[in-house]
Amino acid sequence: MDLVNGSGTMPKFFTHRSKKSGLPPGTPVHIGKKQVDQVSITLIDYDENKIQQAEIESVNQCFPFTEKPTVTWINIEGLHDVDTIKNLGDHFGLHPLVQEDIVHTDQRPKLEIYDGYLYIVLKMLHTGNEGITGEQISFILGSNFVLSFQEGSPGDAFSSVRERLLNSRGHIREMGADYLVYALIDAIVDNYFLVLEQYGEQIELLEEEALEEPTPQTLHTIHRVKREMIFLRKAIWPVRELVNRMERGDSELIQNTTRLYLRDVYDHTIQVIEAIELFRDMLSSILDIYLSSISNRMNEVMKVLTIYATIFIPLTFIVGVYGMNFEYMPELKIWWAYPLLWLIMLGVAGSLLVFFRRKKWL
Amino acid sequence: MDLVNGSGTMPKFFTHRSKKSGLPPGTPVHIGKKQVDQVSITLIDYDENKIQQAEIESVNQCFPFTEKPTVTWINIEGLHDVDTIKNLGDHFGLHPLVQEDIVHTDQRPKLEIYDGYLYIVLKMLHTGNEGITGEQISFILGSNFVLSFQEGSPGDAFSSVRERLLNSRGHIREMGADYLVYALIDAIVDNYFLVLEQYGEQIELLEEEALEEPTPQTLHTIHRVKREMIFLRKAIWPVRELVNRMERGDSELIQNTTRLYLRDVYDHTIQVIEAIELFRDMLSSILDIYLSSISNRMNEVMKVLTIYATIFIPLTFIVGVYGMNFEYMPELKIWWAYPLLWLIMLGVAGSLLVFFRRKKWL
Amino acid sequence: MDLVNGSGTMPKFFTHRSKKSGLPPGTPVHIGKKQVDQVSITLIDYDENKIQQAEIESVNQCFPFTEKPTVTWINIEGLHDVDTIKNLGDHFGLHPLVQEDIVHTDQRPKLEIYDGYLYIVLKMLHTGNEGITGEQISFILGSNFVLSFQEGSPGDAFSSVRERLLNSRGHIREMGADYLVYALIDAIVDNYFLVLEQYGEQIELLEEEALEEPTPQTLHTIHRVKREMIFLRKAIWPVRELVNRMERGDSELIQNTTRLYLRDVYDHTIQVIEAIELFRDMLSSILDIYLSSISNRMNEVMKVLTIYATIFIPLTFIVGVYGMNFEYMPELKIWWAYPLLWLIMLGVAGSLLVFFRRKKWL
Amino acid sequence: MDLVNGSGTMPKFFTHRSKKSGLPPGTPVHIGKKQVDQVSITLIDYDENKIQQAEIESVNQCFPFTEKPTVTWINIEGLHDVDTIKNLGDHFGLHPLVQEDIVHTDQRPKLEIYDGYLYIVLKMLHTGNEGITGEQISFILGSNFVLSFQEGSPGDAFSSVRERLLNSRGHIREMGADYLVYALIDAIVDNYFLVLEQYGEQIELLEEEALEEPTPQTLHTIHRVKREMIFLRKAIWPVRELVNRMERGDSELIQNTTRLYLRDVYDHTIQVIEAIELFRDMLSSILDIYLSSISNRMNEVMKVLTIYATIFIPLTFIVGVYGMNFEYMPELKIWWAYPLLWLIMLGVAGSLLVFFRRKKWL
Amino acid sequence: MDLVNGSGTMPKFFTHRSKKSGLPPGTPVHIGKKQVDQVSITLIDYDENKIQQAEIESVNQCFPFTEKPTVTWINIEGLHDVDTIKNLGDHFGLHPLVQEDIVHTDQRPKLEIYDGYLYIVLKMLHTGNEGITGEQISFILGSNFVLSFQEGSPGDAFSSVRERLLNSRGHIREMGADYLVYALIDAIVDNYFLVLEQYGEQIELLEEEALEEPTPQTLHTIHRVKREMIFLRKAIWPVRELVNRMERGDSELIQNTTRLYLRDVYDHTIQVIEAIELFRDMLSSILDIYLSSISNRMNEVMKVLTIYATIFIPLTFIVGVYGMNFEYMPELKIWWAYPLLWLIMLGVAGSLLVFFRRKKWL
Repeated sequence: MDLVNGSGTMPKFFTHRSKKSGLPPGTPVHIGKKQVDQVSITLIDYDENKIQQAEIESVNQCFPFTEKPTVTWINIEGLHDVDTIKNLGDHFGLHPLVQEDIVHTDQRPKLEIYDGYLYIVLKMLHTGNEGITGEQISFILGSNFVLSFQEGSPGDAFSSVRERLLNSRGHIREMGADYLVYALIDAIVDNYFLVLEQYGEQIELLEEEALEEPTPQTLHTIHRVKREMIFLRKAIWPVRELVNRMERGDSELIQNTTRLYLRDVYDHTIQVIEAIELFRDMLSSILDIYLSSISNRMNEVMKVLTIYATIFIPLTFIVGVYGMNFEYMPELKIWWAYPLLWLIMLGVAGSLLVFFRRKKWL
Repeated sequence: MDLVNGSGTMPKFFTHRSKKSGLPPGTPVHIGKKQVDQVSITLIDYDENKIQQAEIESVNQCFPFTEKPTVTWINIEGLHDVDTIKNLGDHFGLHPLVQEDIVHTDQRPKLEIYDGYLYIVLKMLHTGNEGITGEQISFILGSNFVLSFQEGSPGDAFSSVRERLLNSRGHIREMGADYLVYALIDAIVDNYFLVLEQYGEQIELLEEEALEEPTPQTLHTIHRVKREMIFLRKAIWPVRELVNRMERGDSELIQNTTRLYLRDVYDHTIQVIEAIELFRDMLSSILDIYLSSISNRMNEVMKVLTIYATIFIPLTFIVGVYGMNFEYMPELKIWWAYPLLWLIMLGVAGSLLVFFRRKKWL
Repeated sequence: MDLVNGSGTMPKFFTHRSKKSGLPPGTPVHIGKKQVDQVSITLIDYDENKIQQAEIESVNQCFPFTEKPTVTWINIEGLHDVDTIKNLGDHFGLHPLVQEDIVHTDQRPKLEIYDGYLYIVLKMLHTGNEGITGEQISFILGSNFVLSFQEGSPGDAFSSVRERLLNSRGHIREMGADYLVYALIDAIVDNYFLVLEQYGEQIELLEEEALEEPTPQTLHTIHRVKREMIFLRKAIWPVRELVNRMERGDSELIQNTTRLYLRDVYDHTIQVIEAIELFRDMLSSILDIYLSSISNRMNEVMKVLTIYATIFIPLTFIVGVYGMNFEYMPELKIWWAYPLLWLIMLGVAGSLLVFFRRKKWL
Repeated sequence: MDLVNGSGTMPKFFTHRSKKSGLPPGTPVHIGKKQVDQVSITLIDYDENKIQQAEIESVNQCFPFTEKPTVTWINIEGLHDVDTIKNLGDHFGLHPLVQEDIVHTDQRPKLEIYDGYLYIVLKMLHTGNEGITGEQISFILGSNFVLSFQEGSPGDAFSSVRERLLNSRGHIREMGADYLVYALIDAIVDNYFLVLEQYGEQIELLEEEALEEPTPQTLHTIHRVKREMIFLRKAIWPVRELVNRMERGDSELIQNTTRLYLRDVYDHTIQVIEAIELFRDMLSSILDIYLSSISNRMNEVMKVLTIYATIFIPLTFIVGVYGMNFEYMPELKIWWAYPLLWLIMLGVAGSLLVFFRRKKWL
Repeated sequence: MDLVNGSGTMPKFFTHRSKKSGLPPGTPVHIGKKQVDQVSITLIDYDENKIQQAEIESVNQCFPFTEKPTVTWINIEGLHDVDTIKNLGDHFGLHPLVQEDIVHTDQRPKLEIYDGYLYIVLKMLHTGNEGITGEQISFILGSNFVLSFQEGSPGDAFSSVRERLLNSRGHIREMGADYLVYALIDAIVDNYFLVLEQYGEQIELLEEEALEEPTPQTLHTIHRVKREMIFLRKAIWPVRELVNRMERGDSELIQNTTRLYLRDVYDHTIQVIEAIELFRDMLSSILDIYLSSISNRMNEVMKVLTIYATIFIPLTFIVGVYGMNFEYMPELKIWWAYPLLWLIMLGVAGSLLVFFRRKKWL
């Protein structure tokens, strides 16, 4: 469950906290929406020469693999089965607070360095009919193993990495566990580009709408997208620092060859953040354009009223004059007075129109 | 007494200062509202194996406990009895300025490191009918004792910690005084989430109101909530730095095992601060929506006026023409002139309506 | 003379500069308003056991005192007698630039460290009918003496300190010259709280006025107070840094016991600065409220016009129709046509009123 | 392909990413628009005494030159022939990520330090009918060679450098490869001044238009130029840091004599950035002026309406009075009543005009 | 030639760049307006005991002086004679880039440290009918010589320094070349105060105008002054850093006694910068006041229209009723109906006026 859910409504992330109130810290309690019915555990064990993949049912089956020098990647999808996670966590010696954070799905992206392993949290982003949602992904990087925890979502973010592992494309099989974590983070950051592309198109449409057919709904959409940008920024901004610390930090778990690749991810994160800032700037411009369009329309309405009124007001006065019942009104008796009056009135109207055209009101 | 009291009025926090003017620094004078009639002192003394709880009447009764290696927690509720606090402070060797700050209830949250103890100030937040109020909580952390000072408020913020101590849930009984202070700070930060949740709901309602039924009262509420956000930010922002310094600082009073837990509290503080910033952003959006709604309504009013006026102004002119009293107006004599005029007038009105519809004003 | 004088007009502080143009630096020239006719010099000389106070006429009388190990405090009120100050400055070995800055009363608050003494400048604030004014206070802190220079103003800012010295209240007599300077700075910062309290009340009144009786004068006052806040910020903001440097700096003139007290003053300065920021935020809100109130009133006016016009415009058309002079208008002959028309007109007006009420315009 | 393409539409830079999805990192794939049909490779090899220039067809022909101590500059125009670039990159031992970044044309300007060479990316800016576009230029600086990669664009940015080399003007032939890179970067930064000059003129015209003939199109142009400024800032801002790191950094590839020249480029970059900030400030002012002009025009329209209406409304009432058909209206019988009424009406109109002139509405 | 020329138009500073395109760096080309016809060179050579002043024609005449231990100050006015400057520069061993920057008059204020000398650039400000202009002043500070380069402008900024030298006022003759540079910079900063004073008066007048007689011209002036403030900030802001580096930097060319004086200049620079920020704040306030005044006037106009219309619209309806030609309208026959109607109409108008007064619209 993310800080701002996607439908443009208020953040709900506090509501589930009550589950935990009064519990001692380090008690893992699943906080978030149950995304999948069944927790699924996938294990991939590989080195340069051979690779082994398995769907396993009990975490205990994983443990033999982790004693070998090969890289072992255990992926858990679905976080509501707290016992499984506790079992796994205890085997790998994870701190109770880490176990708690894995299942408590409203963490900010962060990197925490513990003795013997790194704990990394990020958000995978999904767009759907109800807006944008964030899925919490946690990684544990040890010397020869990687644990990854997903809430479980439609689609598999890691399929491209898995495919590269199985087909041994690129260097991935020759490198260590740190490179695997890099590849997984890279897949997540690539996914950010796709999400931003969708927003880019939406913002382009919004701008056209604001310029040509502004409705109160337009304003509403502008504010919704603005808020989703805030959500995106919150989800992505800390990733920059996270990757930077991985690249520069002195953890021995990350090798120098991998650092170069992390610098590449770092550049991508900055590009994503710059795009978000750009979108926010554009939304402000669109808001200006919207307000200005609305005001232009109103001004047009007012001008029509003014022109109508200023033409007919004197004419109505004139006909009123000759509607008076004075006995001694010599004009009324003259036979050419009536057609003459029509000429005068046409003249008044005509000269007013000329005046308006000169003032550029028409 | 807090910096901005909750009812949306001006900060009153200077007024009581006059009590102190001319006094030398380090003179403890109670500044704030007297929240409880009777100062109540609770003592809990525990180690891994046994625990002892007592309501005591005179602070002198506490002193024997503090000489034992067990952890002693003395909680004072009500700060107006300056003598009691001075007595306690002198026994534990607290600096006069610390004693002064404990009873002077408009401190900013801060951490001060003294020889042999830490002095920590935070704000517990309470929401009520008159808005949000802040209660000053002070902690003194020594090597084997914790003093906590509350202004005294409805509800007991620390009941969950007390309950965990008595029932020995989690590690709390096995850890030292520093962990106890962590647990108490954690309880306060958890309380911030509850307060923010309430604001979240209120802001959601405000947004709907701004969009659908904007009244001048809406504007007033927006500004009130905005100001309460400023108050919240002032009360919570320094807590981040405080916890960060506790975590990273080199005081020997805080053990490494506790630092990990403080890092957890630090993350929570950042989440709270981010939520406040989010709320402030949303309030700005709501203000925009409000102003835009008001202006939309006005525009609708103006459009109706314009349409009415532009249709009837030419018609009124026409009927004015045939109200003139010229003797030679041949139209007046023709029997079908009157019904024809009606047709013409209907035609004028109809074509204007078509024109307006084409311009999308209807 | 301060940067922005209090009456809400422009800063005048450059005008007197011309006095100095072409003079070599380090020439003391009094720049500022002459506040008192007569320069008055007060000397207090004390240690833990005895204290001596004297009004003296010539600075030369002070010099014997400064050779004793007791703390000597020389207070000069009135800065226009440049010779006296030069005489004093030369005796204590003050750098010519320091002498120049003391009498040149538009310094920013600052701390300058010289060999053997510290030079400290602050602003005492006074509110009056013509707004807020700042009085420059300079301190010279030596190992066993304190010089203080005031422009001379109504009221004595240091009376409480003097009274504590004479009555030996608190530790002041037991501590050194550095503690005396601390006490004097503390008195000035306490005075800031009083000034802010007055602004707090004024802002509260402004808010009410903006909400209920906005006049163009209200706008004017909002901008005046805003500018005075800028003045306050300029006068107080650097004090924070000044006190911080005194507390943390490595000057041997300030003892460790005094540093704790300076930390206390530092906290107060932050509170003052936060209050100013709060006031600025509130003034922005009040400006919004003002503009919104004005616009609400205008909208109300427009609504009344619109309702009037939209009701009477069709009625006036109707009566115009039966004012026409066609010979063949059968309705005119029917005896119940006139009362029927009244009914129709009442019906039109009534249904328009119902329409407006449904649209929530009434 | 740049982040924001020049025609004022949305950033398209994500779209081509899909080409790469699932590929391992370090796979060079050309991402960008194919700018030229044929990749052209130019080689210049020089030292103080002799210079040799050649258009070559296969990169292999370059390799013999790079073994000599002379400076070898290989310029590649057109990036879609990935094999050529891979061949070249492998020969010079470029990291796969560098090879990938060279052909992936949406990099941010950056400097990356590798063992034995520096990798530098910048944007050359081109203005055209469809707005501003950015061409990615990459440099590889080795100890005695420079590789430069251009997307290929109309005009040759480096012709002035080439001409200086051939004619041996200035010191360029006496200095090393690092000075050549400096000269190329300098040429790019000089080009920024030309682009800004064009914007300067456009903004000047915009300001005039906003003041004198504001149309909705004006607003659109303001927002387009604003967005192009954001694009410029994104393309140029990182160059400052890049040049600064080259100047201060400790890479041995850059000699001290060259650093002074880089400091000069650094100053130019700051001037460019300041000009962009100035333009952004000016665009905000122009937006204010535009909105104010629009509102002034509306106010003028409204004033005309008001004056018309307020003059004729009472007159129309008066003539209405004497259009009534009461039998007993003595005024109607008096012969001078009609001319008197005209006088009265002229008087009313006249005094209203005087009133308006006094109020400064005319 | 400065970045923004004073007449409020666009920066022209790029245009002259074309002169230089294609030239190797370090080629001195005069870029800027030719301010004086004849380059004039003044030499002052002094020590504590004697002083010598000369107008010289060829720079070669200066060289003998620079070999003596006395301080030699060579002032060049007029920068278009590039050969003279090159000759001088080569004699003193100035880097080609420094020679280029001296004649290229759009440098930002900066300090550059070279072996054996410092290069300092500042802007002298001049106000005139066409607004504010900046004159570039360059200093070269060597161990016993100072070179100063002026574009040549009306008035002599350095006359006060020259006069102090000749009359041996203050310490200037006893100190070294560094003190001379300090004195010259001090003269420039003093000039900033004079410029700001003029702006202060202008802004005061603008505020009054915005409040009492706002015209579209007012808006234009506000924006012009705002832009000139941006220009001032650009010209003065870097001076702060420049002076700070001179004071703190470790160049041996600046002695410790001079550093104290530089700290004084540093304080002045901060005061100037704060005044600029204050003026910018005030201009924003004035813009608000202007917009609010304009809107107040419009509202007044609208109120008059509304009151007129709402009073006469019902009256006109009433007289319309009795202008109808129904045969059966009994009221028309009654002799007191007409005067009664007048009473009724006066009553309607009166009660509407009372209503408006109650609503505070009058």
